Amino acid sequence: MPYIDLNNHAPGIIGLLRFRPETGRPLSELAEVLLRGPHPLTRGERELIAAYVSALNRCQFCARSHAASAAAQLPGGASTVEQVQTDPDQAAISDKMKELLKIAAKVQRSGTEVTAADVASARAADASDVEIHDAVLIAAAFCMYNRYVDGLATIAPDDEAMYAQNAERIVAIGYLPGSDELNNDA
Amino acid sequence: MPYIDLNNHAPGIIGLLRFRPETGRPLSELAEVLLRGPHPLTRGERELIAAYVSALNRCQFCARSHAASAAAQLPGGASTVEQVQTDPDQAAISDKMKELLKIAAKVQRSGTEVTAADVASARAADASDVEIHDAVLIAAAFCMYNRYVDGLATIAPDDEAMYAQNAERIVAIGYLPGSDELNNDA
Repeated sequence: MPYIDLNNHAPGIIGLLRFRPETGRPLSELAEVLLRGPHPLTRGERELIAAYVSALNRCQFCARSHAASAAAQLPGGASTVEQVQTDPDQAAISDKMKELLKIAAKVQRSGTEVTAADVASARAADASDVEIHDAVLIAAAFCMYNRYVDGLATIAPDDEAMYAQNAERIVAIGYLPGSDELNNDA
Repeated sequence: MPYIDLNNHAPGIIGLLRFRPETGRPLSELAEVLLRGPHPLTRGERELIAAYVSALNRCQFCARSHAASAAAQLPGGASTVEQVQTDPDQAAISDKMKELLKIAAKVQRSGTEVTAADVASARAADASDVEIHDAVLIAAAFCMYNRYVDGLATIAPDDEAMYAQNAERIVAIGYLPGSDELNNDA
């Protein structure tokens, strides 16, 4: 049970975005730009950063939601996501992604942990400034979304099919209000 | 020196918002709604939550910026902000604000630390659902802004007058792009 009355029964962040649309709109727009806007990293790679940071923050709803979205859009699917959650260095992802995930893990603890050497390693693996920027901001943003979802005790269903279905909708429609996910009752 | 070339010399988050306006816009809109939009908490009280969480995250640029904005808009000014940074329970703020700051401090560590008892205490001190919601989201959002600002090693000037001047502009104009702060070179 969420700590406040959301006036809807939608799980996770979906219920929060509906409860207060004034904050829901910029929160949805930020997710859309970061995870789906034009970018040198693929949508699957960006969802992978979101899933990885959400798992580090032990936010079940976000970790499972973004793991499903990453699996739906990455070569190797769920297997690649599982490899990353276990040990990113051994996963079937690019060296650039391994370096960006190292930076993301540091951001999850504190922005002050990221060093010039971390950024130099990412650059040596061909990461551009905008890729480094967005890896930091995606990691930082999920430190917000995760705290928001858990700080108000929203519902994280245990039904894996729900996460897969939500991911299908995200892949098809995206995060902006106007998708059926945000407008219909649930 | 920031870790990436921002193509501008603006300090803290200001340089980041200019570097990537696609993410800058929703980030600015979120700050505007949370800290200045219509709300039962005053603008000064909401800036105080932002300053408090930013200090817990040891983000110098954000802590000093929002302390200055809180001081400019709170009864008691800088003295009230200093009391809160030292010990919120002894500060000259309402019991409701003390309870909301306790929740914010827990969100700063992890969303999962907030308990039903914390929320019941806030409610007993007359906090409404939207006040509890926004206290959680402001705290969560500053866990993002702080990590973004420090994870890319942006500049935090030591000049107190700069923070006071920026706060004057924020009080007068707000956080949305279109203010001189975001559009002029610095």
